[in-house]
Amino acid sequence: MERILLGHGSGGKLMHQLIRDYFAAEFHLGELGDAAVVEFHGCGQKFAFTTDSYVVSPLFFPGGNIGELAVNGTVNDLSMVGSKPVYITAGFIIEEGFAVDDLKRIVVSMADAAQKAGVHIVAGDTKVVDKGKGDGLFINTSGIGVVPEGRELGPRKIMVGDKVIISGLIGSHGVAVMAQRNGLEFDPPVISDTAALNGLVEAMFSVSDSLRMMRDPTRGGVATTLKEIALESGRCVTINEQSLPVPEGVRGACELLGLDPLYVANEGVLIAIAPPDQAGQLIAKMKEHPLGAQAAVIGEISGEKRDSGMVLLKTPIGGTRIVDMLAGEQLPRIC
Amino acid sequence: MERILLGHGSGGKLMHQLIRDYFAAEFHLGELGDAAVVEFHGCGQKFAFTTDSYVVSPLFFPGGNIGELAVNGTVNDLSMVGSKPVYITAGFIIEEGFAVDDLKRIVVSMADAAQKAGVHIVAGDTKVVDKGKGDGLFINTSGIGVVPEGRELGPRKIMVGDKVIISGLIGSHGVAVMAQRNGLEFDPPVISDTAALNGLVEAMFSVSDSLRMMRDPTRGGVATTLKEIALESGRCVTINEQSLPVPEGVRGACELLGLDPLYVANEGVLIAIAPPDQAGQLIAKMKEHPLGAQAAVIGEISGEKRDSGMVLLKTPIGGTRIVDMLAGEQLPRIC
Repeated sequence: MERILLGHGSGGKLMHQLIRDYFAAEFHLGELGDAAVVEFHGCGQKFAFTTDSYVVSPLFFPGGNIGELAVNGTVNDLSMVGSKPVYITAGFIIEEGFAVDDLKRIVVSMADAAQKAGVHIVAGDTKVVDKGKGDGLFINTSGIGVVPEGRELGPRKIMVGDKVIISGLIGSHGVAVMAQRNGLEFDPPVISDTAALNGLVEAMFSVSDSLRMMRDPTRGGVATTLKEIALESGRCVTINEQSLPVPEGVRGACELLGLDPLYVANEGVLIAIAPPDQAGQLIAKMKEHPLGAQAAVIGEISGEKRDSGMVLLKTPIGGTRIVDMLAGEQLPRIC
Repeated sequence: MERILLGHGSGGKLMHQLIRDYFAAEFHLGELGDAAVVEFHGCGQKFAFTTDSYVVSPLFFPGGNIGELAVNGTVNDLSMVGSKPVYITAGFIIEEGFAVDDLKRIVVSMADAAQKAGVHIVAGDTKVVDKGKGDGLFINTSGIGVVPEGRELGPRKIMVGDKVIISGLIGSHGVAVMAQRNGLEFDPPVISDTAALNGLVEAMFSVSDSLRMMRDPTRGGVATTLKEIALESGRCVTINEQSLPVPEGVRGACELLGLDPLYVANEGVLIAIAPPDQAGQLIAKMKEHPLGAQAAVIGEISGEKRDSGMVLLKTPIGGTRIVDMLAGEQLPRIC
């Protein structure tokens, strides 16, 4: 009998298969973005609705903990479909014996993260499982956002010639968690980038009325997100390896751990696809925001039929590498 | 250092303390109902928003499984605040090694339950934890409902003389799960009552314009829910023991297992507080619905100052017993 593997939760190929074959099929899910965009009968307003469970191990890591990660992650999922996040719920699955002091630290940091992001935690739930049947703490956050009129993003909007923009340095979250898990310290130290992106997203919308699509490269990293964009749009994504902003600490840690920064999770970075004539003003505006200071164009969309659904990486010496989705699991329980 | 106990998840006193001292305090939660009622700037409509994680053990039990329980439970939480449930999310935390066939059965039953209840599962999330760090499967469901104009329920609405109505037979879910967990079989067999109550609730609103409050007596059972109602309203709730509809199988099983049916979880039953002049037509209407066939008035609200926040149970021989909230844990992981 087929059994669930760690890789089914990694954000890569196995997970996409599981979602396609079981969840999307049975639940009749349509487009699979970071959040669903929904409407209500008799109400003109569009809303975004999303859910994410967090099982990161360890619970505390350089730069954050599971609580703020859970709030920021759901805020970001709502932001990626162009909505303004408003309300969040928090569901806790606690293992018997968990220290109440740790719970308190985590809850306080969730309240702080919510305040920073301007969202309200309005409902919650607490379950406790027997010792040995959980792993300290799992948190689910679900969220609702309001989609301002006229904002419609998605892979269908992507056109040949569009630019691929990244908002910041990549790989920090995954490396910070892996280092903590394995008792490693790097110099310079690597700190998780967990942050709420809704402020940056609003700044972007203030200068661009035709952003095509946004997605935050969490599990599976930048490579997996780009591959999703290529597959869902039916276009080809070409990236210049040289323009990928990998911080030195992440690069060194990845060499040591045998990881590819392109597949390492980020929790405060977004990838946006924008029309070429708006890329300049977008980058300029993003650079004014603390989370966009390192914003850069990293590639573009092309449309040759034979390259449909492909991600190509141009190396500094003029070669071209085909980038695929994360296969199996590289970094389990990173978020 | 203080540590989390199983009782912190039981729905009773410890859980109320934990929620009051940590979650409600840090998140500035107001009234703690089954779902939050929220509004959006510039939109006249009110919405309900709720979340619940499900950790029931075992995953399959007589009358249902964790999947339909998760859908029905969130539909019911939305219904209890008077909203019409519309959208649901589903978050899965799967233990490595879990059988894909079991996952499929559960997902199919979620899709069926959603269809029956008339709600749409619009977003999901999948995480996998290492073998030994979970317990097969945990599911979070969050949901949004629309609150029709004029529906406002809550403990403040409760008045002296109001009637306490129960929609059906009590104790079936808790006993069914406990029996399955312990390998017991009863004659007559006890089957979980898991069901979506939104249809019944709409029938009730069709004949009553001033329902005061509703709540479904899940974890902690009827006793804990009545105690919450008494405490939150500052009134006294008096129940006639004889009028409590306990099915024979549940009564026998509870005697055998040393349980009190008043504290056993229900998953397809609601308690409603209604004005005395509407109780008759409510009961009549409820009896037309399959889930309300056993509806009955079980008691009423009084308001003597010295009894504020109390639940009194009148026994058949004329005595009066004080009913308290579930203390500690009686039935862990029942939902």
